[in-house]
Amino acid sequence: MSLLIVGTVAFDEVETPYGKTGKILGGAGTYIGLAASHLTDNISIVSVVGGDFPKEHLDLFREKKIDISGLKVVEDGKTFFWAGKYHQDMNTRDTLVTELNVLADFDPVVPAHARNSEYLLLGNLTPAIQKRVIEQMEPRPKLIVMDTMNFWMNTAWDDLMEVLTMIDVLTINDEEARQLSGEQSLVKAARKILTMGPKYLIVKKGEHGAMLFYEDKVFIAPAMPLEEVFDPTGAGDTFAGGLIGYIARRDDTSFDTLKTAIIYGSAMASFTVEKFGTDRLLEINSEEVSKRLASFAELVSFKF
Amino acid sequence: MSLLIVGTVAFDEVETPYGKTGKILGGAGTYIGLAASHLTDNISIVSVVGGDFPKEHLDLFREKKIDISGLKVVEDGKTFFWAGKYHQDMNTRDTLVTELNVLADFDPVVPAHARNSEYLLLGNLTPAIQKRVIEQMEPRPKLIVMDTMNFWMNTAWDDLMEVLTMIDVLTINDEEARQLSGEQSLVKAARKILTMGPKYLIVKKGEHGAMLFYEDKVFIAPAMPLEEVFDPTGAGDTFAGGLIGYIARRDDTSFDTLKTAIIYGSAMASFTVEKFGTDRLLEINSEEVSKRLASFAELVSFKF
Repeated sequence: MSLLIVGTVAFDEVETPYGKTGKILGGAGTYIGLAASHLTDNISIVSVVGGDFPKEHLDLFREKKIDISGLKVVEDGKTFFWAGKYHQDMNTRDTLVTELNVLADFDPVVPAHARNSEYLLLGNLTPAIQKRVIEQMEPRPKLIVMDTMNFWMNTAWDDLMEVLTMIDVLTINDEEARQLSGEQSLVKAARKILTMGPKYLIVKKGEHGAMLFYEDKVFIAPAMPLEEVFDPTGAGDTFAGGLIGYIARRDDTSFDTLKTAIIYGSAMASFTVEKFGTDRLLEINSEEVSKRLASFAELVSFKF
Repeated sequence: MSLLIVGTVAFDEVETPYGKTGKILGGAGTYIGLAASHLTDNISIVSVVGGDFPKEHLDLFREKKIDISGLKVVEDGKTFFWAGKYHQDMNTRDTLVTELNVLADFDPVVPAHARNSEYLLLGNLTPAIQKRVIEQMEPRPKLIVMDTMNFWMNTAWDDLMEVLTMIDVLTINDEEARQLSGEQSLVKAARKILTMGPKYLIVKKGEHGAMLFYEDKVFIAPAMPLEEVFDPTGAGDTFAGGLIGYIARRDDTSFDTLKTAIIYGSAMASFTVEKFGTDRLLEINSEEVSKRLASFAELVSFKF
């Protein structure tokens, strides 16, 4: 099935207790695309980079058979840059640098051949931009998954409310679910958010796993217990990539498929945190993915 | 199978955002016993109360067919009393009063007929007392489950280390697992704790569920997502009661049985928090328990 991903392609510089990277390949669109490419094909990315974005990174997407004809290169601009430092416990981080650069004027244009993509994943971006992407799709995708964050709840509430009515699946973390709904209890928060537009709500709880809400049903998946989290950057986006990759492969949008998709997303995310940046995502093969999925199933299986 | 529970029987006074109780029945041994009594029979409790402990509470245990011949009544003493107030988010609480009273001189004597109990649950008590209980058992129980807390890690380290070598299952929360092991990663923490004596480690994570570690294996169960947590008091002890109750009923100590026991413990705990104190635990019937267990299974089930 065809999958369109709209999200940042960027440079990251990351410091964790294990070390420090230079400027490396990052961005939500990158992690989503690379994760999804392990599970499905016919993937396009719409994004923007500057003239400083190296050819080897562009080639990387091509190698992974990800169509980048919608990845605009602004020759006289600079690529979006983020630098951050994780604290000892890896659960919190400080943002040291955010240079929007070419992202500041990003006006996504979906290439003609990708406008009929059957599945659409909107990475965390200005709600107005997410809306402009949806409006270019014809016919409407079978499933639209959208990520967002507290920043847009604080600065673009009305736009966010509007785009929520246009999507099918919202992914946010637990604090964002509480902020978006004004409810402390996640069950109450989910019930309220499901009246705002999305059919499905996925609440990401980091090391505590993820929850899927649909109608009055709930599904909970743990995160993979890892001996060491080396670099958490991109874990949430990798989760989203594994999720949409599995859904596109199955070409089904039922609750049952979404549940399994969450397991796939969690398994893919557990790879990303094992090394810096996209390193682990780039080296794993389908055998390792299958093995991790089996471990995951083992983790929650019991008999009555 | 026969089950011996050693733990506090107490008065609690609880304030939550939903209201305030007077002096009500509480204590780890109480919650453990009442929870276990839904799943198995032949239960004895060893504990101590004062002359102020009302006959109706004693009758309650008898009604539930819990043998209280090992529940010592110190006629001229007062029952252990704890008062606490929960914060708005229910995840933290302030202890307002702790009066040890008769608990200060508690020297547990296991009645002769209960010394050969096949299963032993040691609620959170001084490690030295937990040890004295184990020493009275003849033959050694098939499984000894022990709860403890950070307080004993700070004040009775050597005794705690000794009793850890005498038990099979340790239940603690995530922060306590980190403190006990000196490891930040729960996987590393668990690996270390499993070298200290216990064969199984259960890490309780409150609203984030529980993890079971055994050899190099892990099992994770979520907590039941509830619309409202009315009063969290006793949830951890109810979990332990559901756990040991199921194990005793199955009369099996394999990893598979422990996994299912965690689901039973979690399901029982989800009842306790729905009302003040032991109210909910006292009113539920076996049909409600079965229904909750089915919901629990539903919560984590998915198809590959």
